[in-house]
Amino acid sequence: MIHNERLVRACRRQEVDRAPVWMMRQAGRYLAEYRDIRARIPFLELCKTPELAARVSLQPYEILGVDAVILFSDILIPAQAMGMDLTLSEKGPQLGDPVREMDRVKKLRIPDPSDSTPFVLDTIRILRGELHDEVPLIGFAGAPFTLATYMIEGGTSRNFAEVKRLMHREPKTMHALLAKIAEATIPYLNSQIEAGVHVIQLFDTWAGELSPGNYCEFALPYQQQVFQSLHRGPEGLGVPAILYVNECAAILEMMAESGANVLSIDWRINLDDARLRIGDKLALQGNLDPGALLGTVESISGQAEEMLRRGGDIGYVANLGHGILPMTPVENARAFVETVKKGIKEAA
Amino acid sequence: MIHNERLVRACRRQEVDRAPVWMMRQAGRYLAEYRDIRARIPFLELCKTPELAARVSLQPYEILGVDAVILFSDILIPAQAMGMDLTLSEKGPQLGDPVREMDRVKKLRIPDPSDSTPFVLDTIRILRGELHDEVPLIGFAGAPFTLATYMIEGGTSRNFAEVKRLMHREPKTMHALLAKIAEATIPYLNSQIEAGVHVIQLFDTWAGELSPGNYCEFALPYQQQVFQSLHRGPEGLGVPAILYVNECAAILEMMAESGANVLSIDWRINLDDARLRIGDKLALQGNLDPGALLGTVESISGQAEEMLRRGGDIGYVANLGHGILPMTPVENARAFVETVKKGIKEAA
Repeated sequence: MIHNERLVRACRRQEVDRAPVWMMRQAGRYLAEYRDIRARIPFLELCKTPELAARVSLQPYEILGVDAVILFSDILIPAQAMGMDLTLSEKGPQLGDPVREMDRVKKLRIPDPSDSTPFVLDTIRILRGELHDEVPLIGFAGAPFTLATYMIEGGTSRNFAEVKRLMHREPKTMHALLAKIAEATIPYLNSQIEAGVHVIQLFDTWAGELSPGNYCEFALPYQQQVFQSLHRGPEGLGVPAILYVNECAAILEMMAESGANVLSIDWRINLDDARLRIGDKLALQGNLDPGALLGTVESISGQAEEMLRRGGDIGYVANLGHGILPMTPVENARAFVETVKKGIKEAA
Repeated sequence: MIHNERLVRACRRQEVDRAPVWMMRQAGRYLAEYRDIRARIPFLELCKTPELAARVSLQPYEILGVDAVILFSDILIPAQAMGMDLTLSEKGPQLGDPVREMDRVKKLRIPDPSDSTPFVLDTIRILRGELHDEVPLIGFAGAPFTLATYMIEGGTSRNFAEVKRLMHREPKTMHALLAKIAEATIPYLNSQIEAGVHVIQLFDTWAGELSPGNYCEFALPYQQQVFQSLHRGPEGLGVPAILYVNECAAILEMMAESGANVLSIDWRINLDDARLRIGDKLALQGNLDPGALLGTVESISGQAEEMLRRGGDIGYVANLGHGILPMTPVENARAFVETVKKGIKEAA
């Protein structure tokens, strides 16, 4: 049904002629065309204006020829829908009145996505219309733990002190918050599937900040709950699900129990080592260091080729190990995409 | 010769009655006695005033009864001695005129520690005098890669964009910088050994930001060069050397090739898993999440006990997985230290 179905096939570990490629945060500031639109409209307003959100979603597909389009949005949109006051500025995202006690958790809403975030669904519908089934469309959400870090800290954090304080002093409150976010995330993702996304990615970006024991208690069960509750058809054959965790080297085996079809890993561990550890049931996505895209076209090709060799032929999606950096020259992003599309000649 | 020699014995994998315990950044803001002194004197001046630097070095030993004293200083002191302009403020450290090209590397000096950093040696001599061989004294330095990150970025960094740019666009310049830092670090650490420290810790805090391939090229060889060139007597029996890397889960086997006697690991990987991977030649240090010290006395005891079980009886130094956080209640730091000193009753 989709013309270029490399991404969905690779997620299902079906044969492909070459690895599919896309980049986390591929619709972003490194593109002049994106900056042009952002010069006219603030970030949050862009997320909530379906015609423009669809426009920037399509830019990396039109400019770089990636194998998938990801919905342009922000993982904090559901936090706002749950009742938090969200502002985005040069200093990063800020959530007012952070959640640090049970009463505050109880005040959070479980929103109906068609009422609270209709713009997300409209963006998906526009994208499906404009894409004419050329490439798959990826929907996404933040995982409960990662969303909770923002809701507790009130923004980004370097050491997650408030998160750790709540986790270790008030584990019941932490679990209540995580359960409530999971409860909101499930209909949010299901509404995206109903509106037409082909693949789902769950971003548990900061779960790699946890010890293995804490990951097992505070992140994994909520990932499992989300993946189990998605309307994604027969296992791996409906809408494949990708789980991304940054700094995941020590917890791969646990991530493999999440229910995801694909593990999206960071650059601190080699793809072939990750494959040895998780076996052949799941696909892998990743994992070039986004900082490597600040090199030369030659250095990028060399590193992307090594990545492809380590990624292998089956069940592999080429990507970065984290979002593309805003200062990345667009010709460097192009060198990455082109290297993957050219593929590697396997030495005999 | 040292009354409490648990730390040096554990580093050498010799038998001990219980694990020795100290905490990275144990002389710091979480102690009211430290804040009292800092209220009167800026940080850098404190580092350079031997009587006061010795005073704050001793505080955690006197207040918490840790099993080792670490020299109070800063890893950027040698960067300043190499000719960089260093200021420390609320915004963190700032190094003027960052190093991003070969000419700038060439201008850096290889200082003689007795001329450029005599205050470090005086602090060590005072500490040896006041300690009366009660507990071991730890000296330290930043490893070449980690020091280079500050010298290239001009301070701390979230994504190390300038470091990655230099590494991938101008690898020769990067290697020249790393070699020069190594050349300065060797006499710096040897001067500390001659002045009387019993153990050396090399902080390659940010080397875990690198892919395994980049770690192998840009961090490991310079760690090896430093460890090989230290006057630390017969292997492991003179001055034991500890290597700390944050986010080290994927590179433990390479760290084990550094020449260190002890690997100091972060909390993202369990100690027993790390031990399985590196075998029984090296000791391990770590690795409680510093964020866990924001919990309750009960939660801290429980997690410290689990850490001790995973650490094992031989070749294990109890510590945190990163520096103690400034907002840590002192009674929580005490609960950590006391739990280690009480030890665990092994279940039959």
